[in-house]
Amino acid sequence: MAVYTDITDEELGGLLADYDLGAATGFKGVAEGIENSNFLLETETGRYFLTVYEKRVDPADLPFFLGLMQHLAQHGFPCATPIADRQGRLLKTLRGKPCAVVSYLTGLSVRRPSAAHCREAGMSLAWLHQAGEGFAMRRANDLGQAAWAPLFSTLKDPAEALKPGLAATIEADLQRLAAGWPAGLPEGTIHADYFPDNVFFQSGSFVAAFDFYFACTDTFAYDIAVALNAWCFEADGSFNITAARQLVAGYESRRPLSGAERAALPVLAHGAAMRFFLTRLADWRATPAGALVKPKDPLEYERKLAVHRSSPDLVLFGSPA
Amino acid sequence: MAVYTDITDEELGGLLADYDLGAATGFKGVAEGIENSNFLLETETGRYFLTVYEKRVDPADLPFFLGLMQHLAQHGFPCATPIADRQGRLLKTLRGKPCAVVSYLTGLSVRRPSAAHCREAGMSLAWLHQAGEGFAMRRANDLGQAAWAPLFSTLKDPAEALKPGLAATIEADLQRLAAGWPAGLPEGTIHADYFPDNVFFQSGSFVAAFDFYFACTDTFAYDIAVALNAWCFEADGSFNITAARQLVAGYESRRPLSGAERAALPVLAHGAAMRFFLTRLADWRATPAGALVKPKDPLEYERKLAVHRSSPDLVLFGSPA
Repeated sequence: MAVYTDITDEELGGLLADYDLGAATGFKGVAEGIENSNFLLETETGRYFLTVYEKRVDPADLPFFLGLMQHLAQHGFPCATPIADRQGRLLKTLRGKPCAVVSYLTGLSVRRPSAAHCREAGMSLAWLHQAGEGFAMRRANDLGQAAWAPLFSTLKDPAEALKPGLAATIEADLQRLAAGWPAGLPEGTIHADYFPDNVFFQSGSFVAAFDFYFACTDTFAYDIAVALNAWCFEADGSFNITAARQLVAGYESRRPLSGAERAALPVLAHGAAMRFFLTRLADWRATPAGALVKPKDPLEYERKLAVHRSSPDLVLFGSPA
Repeated sequence: MAVYTDITDEELGGLLADYDLGAATGFKGVAEGIENSNFLLETETGRYFLTVYEKRVDPADLPFFLGLMQHLAQHGFPCATPIADRQGRLLKTLRGKPCAVVSYLTGLSVRRPSAAHCREAGMSLAWLHQAGEGFAMRRANDLGQAAWAPLFSTLKDPAEALKPGLAATIEADLQRLAAGWPAGLPEGTIHADYFPDNVFFQSGSFVAAFDFYFACTDTFAYDIAVALNAWCFEADGSFNITAARQLVAGYESRRPLSGAERAALPVLAHGAAMRFFLTRLADWRATPAGALVKPKDPLEYERKLAVHRSSPDLVLFGSPA
């Protein structure tokens, strides 16, 4: 949740003067998005979102993110679509910060996904991968496998503070991941943060995806691995094999996996858990004691790491249904 | 801004099952309201707000607040209106906390009110006072004049930390306010927090007021004094006499002030500045260093106090237009 930038009516009016959206009739900060400030913007022509990009988003990456959203929408994938101003520009500036007006999406995120939701999540992720074909821009995954060891070198003390002995365990994980990381799998544009809070459902069916601000060019199966971690663990920390099977089956209903992709899922899932463990640990360390906005718990992903470390076959769950 | 309570889809579905509003089609936390968690709730029948009352609101006061909102709406004053469930209940419970569904308001708050906005603010405040006539419930102003000295007795150290010598100045103010505080002025139900961010405009005209969670039974002219402080100071700390004159003229276009009410405005405005200075000082002290949500600056109201202390006649501004 975040609204870091306070917009005056004059600033909003100045921005809207560049668009064909009419005058503002309503404007509310929305408690969504950790990286950006988001506003529900109502105008004479409809409802929109205004996103102001804060310091965690590199402005140099915005043409990729906004271009991807536009490409996906133009190819039929339901997602937030950037709205161009009268001169065709998607990226604008407000109070010295980059911003964009995007289409309004209706729907509900699920907090506790069922196996049926997981099937829809898998199906929609494959759809996203297919709709992204032909998108000409590339962006390296700056939170990919090569980044983890350098990132962890700055986090050994916080890891020990979280749990004595954890630093050595993570070191061993990182070596195992580096040695076993797959190469040559099919790649393209991936979401890289396909969590339940970035997906809308309506009456149990997928209706839209959003928050493309970690999207990058990487292995498709890694995106599935991120989703398996995000969607298929129970609140008690156990891995729900039924949910995982449904997620993969949903994915394959649109885009069947090769044998190599399937075989790589255990190490990819272990790695995806590492990626979120490390960034949550970094956020946890960076947050002052007593802050009102609590960072996400790094221990959630430490527990997921332990599952992948000890039971890699869980993700393979025998033959899928 | 605040969303303190995380609502699951099951909890939301359970709540809506008690209403005739249809199923949820959208649900977003809104960065509005410091005391409560607010959500934009979209259902098959329209848009609503769901407010979950957090610990700063005394549950015993909620029947007064919700009853007042209902009374005002029934008497034609445009404000957020609580929606009753099928059994006629306005106050419900979600995750062990009191909550209410209220009507959705469209409009924009102004960040830098013009004199014309101030006229509308005064007009609408008189309208609110008139619409509140006949509301049978009473609630004492627990942040009224009698509360300030006891509250300040706990805040002397933070006052000195804010500005050396300030504690003695505030003590003198409190004695002057206690000695000069008016009695016997017309009273009724007041908003008591009529700030620009609690009022919506559309095309420069007042369209609605909200956030009645400080409303109480007190002197009408005190409500004007709160509004003079909230609407008529410039960003540089100077008091805008033109704006103040318009606020009072707007008020009197609906409800003329008596000579006694007008004569009391300087001390009431001084007192209203004291009330917000003290609560902001308490919030400022209570917020840990480095917290991501910054409390409102107590020095803003310290400067307003200084204006009222040194130039009480400013608020009287000669004869109104």
